[in-house]
Parts: sequence; structure tokens; C-alpha cells
Amino acid sequence: MLEIKLIPEKEFQRVREADIKKYDKLGLLADMCRANALATVKRAGSGHLGSSFSSLDIVTFLYYSEMNTVELGIDHPDRDIYFSSKGHDAPGHYAVLFALGIIPEEQFINLRRLGGTHGHPDVSIPGMEANSGSLGMGISKAKGMAVAKKMSGSGGRVLVMTGDGELQEGQIWESLQTTVHQNVANIHMIVDFNKIQTDKLLDEIIDLGSLEKKFEIFGWHVERCDGHSFSQLEKVFEKFKHVKDKPKVLIADTIKGKGVSFMEGPVALKDGGGLYKWHAGAPDDDSFEAGYKEIVERINVQLKKVGLEPLHTELLETREKHRIKLKDTAEKVVNVFGAALVELGARRKDIVVLDADLSADCGLRPFENAFPERFIENGIAEQDMVSMAGGLALHGLLPIVNSFGVFLASRANEQIYNNATENTKIIYVCHYAGLIPAGPGKSHQSLRDISLFGALPNCVILEPCNGVETKRALEWCVEEAKENCMMRLVISPSPRKLPLPEDYNFSFGKGTVIQQGKDAVLFAYGPVLLNEALTAAAMLSQQNFALKVVNLPWLNRIDNEWLAETIGDCQTIFSLDNHSEYGGLGDLLLNAFMSSDDLRDKKLIKFAVQEHPACGTPPEALSYHRLDGKSLVDRVLRTMKEKEI
Amino acid sequence: MLEIKLIPEKEFQRVREADIKKYDKLGLLADMCRANALATVKRAGSGHLGSSFSSLDIVTFLYYSEMNTVELGIDHPDRDIYFSSKGHDAPGHYAVLFALGIIPEEQFINLRRLGGTHGHPDVSIPGMEANSGSLGMGISKAKGMAVAKKMSGSGGRVLVMTGDGELQEGQIWESLQTTVHQNVANIHMIVDFNKIQTDKLLDEIIDLGSLEKKFEIFGWHVERCDGHSFSQLEKVFEKFKHVKDKPKVLIADTIKGKGVSFMEGPVALKDGGGLYKWHAGAPDDDSFEAGYKEIVERINVQLKKVGLEPLHTELLETREKHRIKLKDTAEKVVNVFGAALVELGARRKDIVVLDADLSADCGLRPFENAFPERFIENGIAEQDMVSMAGGLALHGLLPIVNSFGVFLASRANEQIYNNATENTKIIYVCHYAGLIPAGPGKSHQSLRDISLFGALPNCVILEPCNGVETKRALEWCVEEAKENCMMRLVISPSPRKLPLPEDYNFSFGKGTVIQQGKDAVLFAYGPVLLNEALTAAAMLSQQNFALKVVNLPWLNRIDNEWLAETIGDCQTIFSLDNHSEYGGLGDLLLNAFMSSDDLRDKKLIKFAVQEHPACGTPPEALSYHRLDGKSLVDRVLRTMKEKEI
Repeated sequence: MLEIKLIPEKEFQRVREADIKKYDKLGLLADMCRANALATVKRAGSGHLGSSFSSLDIVTFLYYSEMNTVELGIDHPDRDIYFSSKGHDAPGHYAVLFALGIIPEEQFINLRRLGGTHGHPDVSIPGMEANSGSLGMGISKAKGMAVAKKMSGSGGRVLVMTGDGELQEGQIWESLQTTVHQNVANIHMIVDFNKIQTDKLLDEIIDLGSLEKKFEIFGWHVERCDGHSFSQLEKVFEKFKHVKDKPKVLIADTIKGKGVSFMEGPVALKDGGGLYKWHAGAPDDDSFEAGYKEIVERINVQLKKVGLEPLHTELLETREKHRIKLKDTAEKVVNVFGAALVELGARRKDIVVLDADLSADCGLRPFENAFPERFIENGIAEQDMVSMAGGLALHGLLPIVNSFGVFLASRANEQIYNNATENTKIIYVCHYAGLIPAGPGKSHQSLRDISLFGALPNCVILEPCNGVETKRALEWCVEEAKENCMMRLVISPSPRKLPLPEDYNFSFGKGTVIQQGKDAVLFAYGPVLLNEALTAAAMLSQQNFALKVVNLPWLNRIDNEWLAETIGDCQTIFSLDNHSEYGGLGDLLLNAFMSSDDLRDKKLIKFAVQEHPACGTPPEALSYHRLDGKSLVDRVLRTMKEKEI
Repeated sequence: MLEIKLIPEKEFQRVREADIKKYDKLGLLADMCRANALATVKRAGSGHLGSSFSSLDIVTFLYYSEMNTVELGIDHPDRDIYFSSKGHDAPGHYAVLFALGIIPEEQFINLRRLGGTHGHPDVSIPGMEANSGSLGMGISKAKGMAVAKKMSGSGGRVLVMTGDGELQEGQIWESLQTTVHQNVANIHMIVDFNKIQTDKLLDEIIDLGSLEKKFEIFGWHVERCDGHSFSQLEKVFEKFKHVKDKPKVLIADTIKGKGVSFMEGPVALKDGGGLYKWHAGAPDDDSFEAGYKEIVERINVQLKKVGLEPLHTELLETREKHRIKLKDTAEKVVNVFGAALVELGARRKDIVVLDADLSADCGLRPFENAFPERFIENGIAEQDMVSMAGGLALHGLLPIVNSFGVFLASRANEQIYNNATENTKIIYVCHYAGLIPAGPGKSHQSLRDISLFGALPNCVILEPCNGVETKRALEWCVEEAKENCMMRLVISPSPRKLPLPEDYNFSFGKGTVIQQGKDAVLFAYGPVLLNEALTAAAMLSQQNFALKVVNLPWLNRIDNEWLAETIGDCQTIFSLDNHSEYGGLGDLLLNAFMSSDDLRDKKLIKFAVQEHPACGTPPEALSYHRLDGKSLVDRVLRTMKEKEI
């Protein structure tokens, strides 16, 4: 059996109060936080360990030694403010806040769970000063905070951690310029310079050149030190206190995965043949045990050395080892997409694939390896990627532009619009569409992308429901579409392989009935919510209610004749959007109903995500938003009952 | 009478073929283009002269002396490619393309007119290689073009002009980094370094420090020269030919407004008390005459010197001088907004106003002058501005964030979303909302902003119809709103001061009947389209059709009871959106109808902008999109007729 253990808060107090040399104590505390971060990530099943570990010594140093935040309290106006702009290092940050008694244990141990802590920072969590996870916003936000402190006459410093890959984002350079010009000196930027991005070396993705010189020429006071040396960190922050006229940046040389030998950057890259595999996701059971053991043994050796008892840990959870997970067996549409991309790339030499440092997540690696000359890695610079695609398209190539939907559709929105006004053809793929996975939280869940593309008059939006349809959809975009296309793809393993009838046909503006029924019709799309719809239909049939379920992959084009035929005599229609209630399939149907004399009297009830998306497991998030099968059953039956009254 | 004249193409041929020293010839040609650019801008009534004039010597040099584009033809794969990333200098660029016979006369003389040339570059115009006007995209696009040339084995260089203020945009720095890393050496960037932004010195807005050092440290080969010296330009481009391994940038020192003494930067700034007034907009009649005379006299002196006849010009248009213009007399809601901002700012010390180099256009100057300590100038860095507002809001301030809607809603979309997830309150003001003015073209017309904010669950969107309502709306946003607000404001003078009844009340989710009628109801908002609606209603009443016109300033919140009452027995409802048909008022009404048992059987017809917005005069654009009064009459009557059948 696998045991997941917690180092409780009182253990941190014991070490904190012990008579140990300062830097040794900080090292111990940081390692104890590492163990807890590892445990919570393992328990959650996902989370960013690599950058939690690279930044943990710095975060420990700041809270335990440098900042006044714990002493004054996390709501005190004169407190020092620290937050992470990259946000991926949240598990490490939470571990420090838990150790200090700021985040309660019950919340801390429930990483990425409803009511627990979010995958990326959220201000609703005690001690978290800003929402992040989307990259590049931190310096700008810190600037607002520093100006607010100045306006209100409050004391306290503003400290913000950025990643290194994050420095590829343009907003970073905007804010470096404005901070100096606006004379906001009370910003202490710390670059967690661990040199590895999602899974490759920063220098391989987009080299940043000399960071020191860049920051200097942008007018910042620059220091550089070993981000794992408490003495060096202390010296830098002492120096910073004397720099009153400039914003300050520390380039902290760190090691990604620091503290677990096989997760540490250089070793891990070598083991992975150039690919780093500990950026995101929980380690497998054996790696977890080995890593945890390594940290705890190091702590105990150290405790013994300073005459303290070994660690007391609490058992959080026992689970069977080597459980088979959904992701190991289920269909992943993104993999089918990746294979189809290679197939199309072989026969269409005009296809160019663009990536913003998410190649593996977006299923692009097969194409990257097969056609390196037609694969463009742009780093974390979505705007540049999209406009570059615009230039390629103007010169006769067919760019396929990839990123997570929440980044691509919003960060590069004006660039997408500008391209669209040139009437070229570009295929945008919004990966990680919708609510699931819900663990990373609202910075990663994409519930607005349809609405962000929707007002482009020359862009077809579609989301396939399974592998077969994914391939057809991509082929359609490449071979048949005359205009721009935006394809949504779910990134998580499909909860079931959606059944399609034998006579299945992928046809413009038309969908497919995947469950017959006469009492009401529900339209949905994509593997996640069609699964819930089928679950609901099965449950409803037990109650003698026959719900027809229709897969409609077209999200802004519809064949009205097909629609009328599919609806038939049914008076009550449901739409189910893996998207905000604004601008999705529901609104498409509403417009279709209004424009058709046959359909105008139909009643449509929209099921969709109505708030900012919840963070949690898939069942938690689906149930929170009342989009799981059981909730759908309740909602359908309630609607039908209301109708009768 | 005012005479507007054209230097015809054959005059350019005459000079081109004459036996004159090369640089003298280029100088003559550039000045002739200046005269034509000035004439077309005067004729159009608007256009960017300042940066057309600062870049004109460079553009003339490129096309007449440096590039192979004219020789090979504008569609030849091996041609050199030039385009302007800032795009504001289009009138000057068009003048060169007209001089070379690439843009036909009929199109050239109709700047900013339907079927003429657009306010900012558009690929539908002969010789224009990319759409721009939105800033910061040029290097990225050039990169796509250069890579496409490489892939296809085509020859030719890629040259891209940027502004200097444009370098405040983050995408510039993204693309500077990626260009080097991706090893795209075939890019020749030219910075039109005229040192003045919209109306202030670049150093006052956001100082850029040492541009040379910045570009160098970003890995580019840097040259600098006088952008008005053809010999220096020639030397630089000769040098560039030997730099094979790096992208190249020329910092061209130029003078904004070069060529017309009183428009030239230093003089004009002095005359304007620190404000530059020739960035956009046509000069008044006297300034036009003086400027045109100055250029033509200089040309004639030069022609005489080289033994050529004086210029022959063609009369384009004669018009009465000192005509009174709408903008001199009409209400401008943005001015009322500006005054209300000062009033609110005096009593609410938590209000902070943020600007992205559009202070005067957005009516912010009164606040800027009254409360300089609470006015934050962010330069052309919308993302940074929005995230900075996020930081301010987290610390208890109320930020009011301003830019043109097309920039704010799209460029900073992810930042707006991130702020919204923090559940603070921020007021976003999308200026220049809608189709009008239509002269600047699609990079400036904002037809998607409602849809770009629409999926935020905690943001109220509204657009007032006149001065009175603008003040009430702003007060409501500041004093009463609990959530974020997005206010759309039309930037042009209102075609009429919209009448509001004596018992007018600004009430959440409710509108105001401004024209009674029993035969159908039309819902609209804002000064531009309500004016057309009232025009239509008046015309319809002549045909005994009584159209009720309702002003509904709430664009995503509606009071269903009020709605049902307002519609009464009417069966046919029209919505009129100064926005894309997707996601605007029409969709709000559709949803309201569907959720109400009283309204479900109503028929809604949506009038809205269905394509990318047209460029032209207001009547041209409104008529093109069939949104002018007369078109509305036709559409209403046709709908009613169809219904009878």
C-alpha cells in the first residue's frame, strides 16, 4: 500500500523554536515544505513540483526570515507582499503558508479539490495576494500594489516571483519599461531562473540571452545569486534595502526539481533524453516513495545533527499501489489530433504547426519530430505566434496555431482579429477547452473561448466528441474550410469513447443523434459533457423518460433543416455547453430557433457554466456547476414538471 | 473657396525620368508625395499627417531606390516586402504607391471612403502587404513572411516600419526575442523615431531609454541615421546587405510632421504648449492652405533649380471655407464623461484613472490636469495597464481603465479576465465603441467588445445614449455597481442630442421609450444607432407605421418585467446593435424572451454589423451595413410584409 503522510504544523513550530543555526533551520524548514508539497501533489494526482521545488528555498527565506508578513498578519496594510506571477509553484507556496499556520490543514491537504487550495494561486486562499497562473502579469500587478501602498501611505515592500520562461511574454517587457518610467521603486522582482520550461531547456525554446544586461538596460537594479543559498539571498535583500531609486530584480539561479535527486534539472534532463518530466503532474507511486524518502531522510539526518528528534508525520491517506488510471487506458482526442496532424502534414506541404511551449500537452510532438522544418516553437509568446502565423498565411502557407484555449483565445485575441481581417486562412486549436481538468483552476480552464472567437465573421468554430470525429474535423478544417477555423479540444482523457452510429457522417452544420428519445432533446458536444448527457439519459430512461442526445460539433454554424428534423415534435430542448452560458451552443440554437418558423415556438433551456469555473476533481467541478449526469437528470425533470404546471 | 489639388501620376514620371541628382530627385518625389498625402487627408477630413510626414522620406527611398518591388511587380514572389506596423502613416505610403502607378487615382483620392483607401493599411489595397493600425504586430508578421520566403525558396527582403511609441507594446519585445532565436535574419526593421506619440513627447509618456542598447542586447544588428537623409539611408541599407546572420534594425531619427514648418515636432510642440496637434485629424482650412503652399513652393523652387517646369496639379475639389462641422457644435458624450470623471474624482479619493496614450481622445485630460497624482499614464501597453489596475483594485482603489474598445477589450483580454477572477471592482471604459467613425477602419472600429467581455460572469456592460445618460451611467458604475463594469462610449460627435423624456430615470436593467409606437418595437442603444432608429421611425410614420423606439443602455442585464411591459402586445421586435450580430443586445433579448413565458412567442429580428466593419464616411458605413435610417425602414417593412405572407 502507498502511504501519503503530512508533516503537521506543530513540527514546523518545533524546528522553528529550536536552537539551530539560522541557515540550517531555513534549510530544514524548506525541506519539510518540500515533503509536504510532494505529498499534496501526490494526493491531488497533479501539480507543479519542478518549479515548486526550485523556488521553495526562496519562498521559505522570504516568509521565515525576510518579510514582516507573518509578524504583522496577512491583512495588515503595512505588510510585505509576496506573490508568484507564474503561479505554477503554488504547492510549494501553500506548504510554507501551512507551515506558518496561515492556511488551515484541512484546506492545505486538499490541493486541487473543491474547498481546498487551487492548482494556481487564488486570493480566496489565506495569504495569497493575487491570482496568477496566466503568465506575465506579475510585475504589472505588483506595480499597482506598490502605487496603492504609496497612495495610502502604507509601509511594506512588494515582492513578486516570476519564472524564466515567463520572460518570453511581452507583458513582462511592457511592465519593466513602465515600472521605471512611473518611478515605482518598491518592487522586488525575483526570477526563479531554473532554466527549464515545460519540458525542455529554456535555451532550446526561446533563448533569453543575457538577462542581467537586459534588466539593466531596462533601468532596473540587478542582483544575481544562488537561489538555494540562504546567506546569498540574505545579502541580496540587504543590498536591496539601500536601493531607493530603482525597482530591483534578483536573478536567482535555481535548479528545477531541487531537493529530489532524480527530479533535479540536469539529472532529470539526462534521464529523459533531453525532456524534463517533472514540470507538472504527480509522480508515479514508486517515484513518489523514493522522492519522499529522500527528503525525509535528509531532514532526519539534519535533525539528528542538531540534537533533535526525528520527524513526526501524520498519515493522510493509504491507497493501493499501481492503480490503473483513466489516463492510461482512455481515449485522448489530443493524441488522435497529433497523429492526424502528421498524416495531413505528409500530404500537405503547406501546413506549418506553431506552438507556444506546450508541444507535448497539445499532441504536437509527433509532428515536431516528423517535420521539424515546418514546426515553429514560439515559446510563451502567444501574440507573436499568432501574428507570425498571419505572415505565413499571407504568403500561402496554412498555419495551425496551438495553445491552451484560455491563453490563445484571450492573450492573442487582437492578433487573431487582425489576421481575420486579412481574409487568409488559419486554423487555431484551443486545447484544454472547457471545465475539465478542473484541478489547475480558472487560469487554465477555458470557458470563454467560443465567445472570444464568436464575433469574427469568418471563423468556423467546432469541437469534436471523440477520436474519429477529431480526425474528420481536422481534415475538414485543412481540406474543406474556406475560412479560418477554431477547433476546441479537450485535453483530458475521455471518460468514455463516445459511440457514433455506423452511418456516421461528418457534415457541415449537422450533428449526430447518439441516443434516441422522444420526450425531449439535448444538444451537446465534446467528450466530457456528452458523457454526462449519456449518463443522464440512461438514468432518465429508468424513470421512463426518453431523452434524445445529439452530438453537435459545430458551434457557430448550423443547418436549420437538419435541426428542425432532429427536433421533430419535441417541445422542450436542452443545450449543454462546456463553456460559459454566454455565446455558446445555447445561443447558437436560440438564434436558429428565432430564424425558423418551424422552431420559433420551441422552449430552450441552457445548461452551461454560469460562474468562474470551480477548481476540483472532475466530478466535483461538474457537480458544483450542476453539469454532471445526476444534476442534469434533476434539472431536466424539474423543467418538465414546471412545464406541466 | 478652398481648393484641394492633386499632383497627378504623370508628374511623378516627369520628375523620375528627369536628369537630376539622385538624392535631389528623391527629395522632390518625397515632397510631392507629402503634398498629395496632405491633400487626401484634407479631403477625407481626417488621417495621420504627423507620422506620414516623418516616415515619408524613408518610404520614398525604399520604393524608388532600394527595393525591387516596383521592378518585379507587387505580386512577384521574389519581391522585397515593405509594410508599416504602425499603419498610421498610411496616407504617406498610399501617396508613394500612387506616384508609382500602383494605386489607381480614383482609389487614392478617396482616402477613408468606401471603395477608396482605408484609414489604416488593408491588404485589399494594391501594394499593401499587411493589415495594421493595431500596434506591435509588425515584426511578428514580418517574421512569418520571412520564414515563408525561406520555405518557398523565394528571394526578396522583408522590411517593416514601426513607430517609436509602438515599442511600448509587449509584443514588440516578444518578437525581438523570437526573431533572433528562430534565426530569422531576413528582417529589416525601421523605427520611425520621431519622438512624439499621440500628442506628447515619448519621453513624457513612457521613456524607452537607449533604444540602440536595447536592440543590441536583444541580439539585433543596429544602425542609426537621419531618417531624412537619403545618403545616410542608402549607406545603412548597403551595410545591411553584409549582415547575413542577424535581423537588422535601423533607428531612423525623424521629425514628426517633417516638411511643413509649423507641423514639425519641436516647433509644433512649442506652439501647442507641450501638446502636438498634428498627429491625427485634417488641418483646418487655413493651416491646410499654408502647409500645401509651403510644400509646393519648395518643390517649384527645386524644380526651377534643376531646370524643370513648375508642378502641374489637378483640381480635386472646391469647397466653401470655414464650414461649420458637426464636431464643432454637436454633443460629445466623451466630453461629458470627462467632466463627470472630474466631479466624481473630487468626492471619491479612491478613483484612479489609467490611460494608454489616448488621454485627449478619451476625455481624460481634465482629470489628468485636476488630479495628476491619481492619473496613471501607461503608454501603449494595455496589458500592463489592466494588470496594474488589478493590483490597485486588490488594495482598495477604484481604477477606471481607458482605451479604445478594440484595443482594450482584445489586447488586454486575458488580463481583464484574471482581474475578474479576483472579484475586485474595476471600471473599464471602451472608447470608440462601434462602427462610427468609420474612417480609421477595422483596426480602430470596435464591433466585438461586448462579446469579449460578455462571458465574464461579474461584469455589467452598458452604453449610454447622450450626455445626461453618460453621467448617470458613470455615477452608477462608481457609486452603485457591486461588480466590474464595462462602459462603451462613442467617440464621435453625436449626430443629434438624443431626447429623453422628462420623467427619465436611469434604472438597472431598464430602458426608456424615446419614440412611442404600436406596430413594432425596436431596441437600440448609444447616440449613433438611436439616431438612425429615430430617423427610421419618422420615415415610417409617414407610411402610417408606428415604430416604438426604446433606448436600452444595459447590454447584458435586463429587467424581464419591464421588458414585457414595454413590448406589450407587439409581436415583432427589432434589435439594433452597434456591434457584431454575435453577443450583443439582440442575443440579450433572445435570452430574455426564451426565459419568459410572456415573451417566448415574440419574433425578434436582429439588425447588427455582420461582416468586418467597412471603412468610409459615417453615412457610407451605415448604409453599407444597412444600418442607416433608410435601410432600417426597408428592412422593417420587408419583415412586416414577410410576416403577413
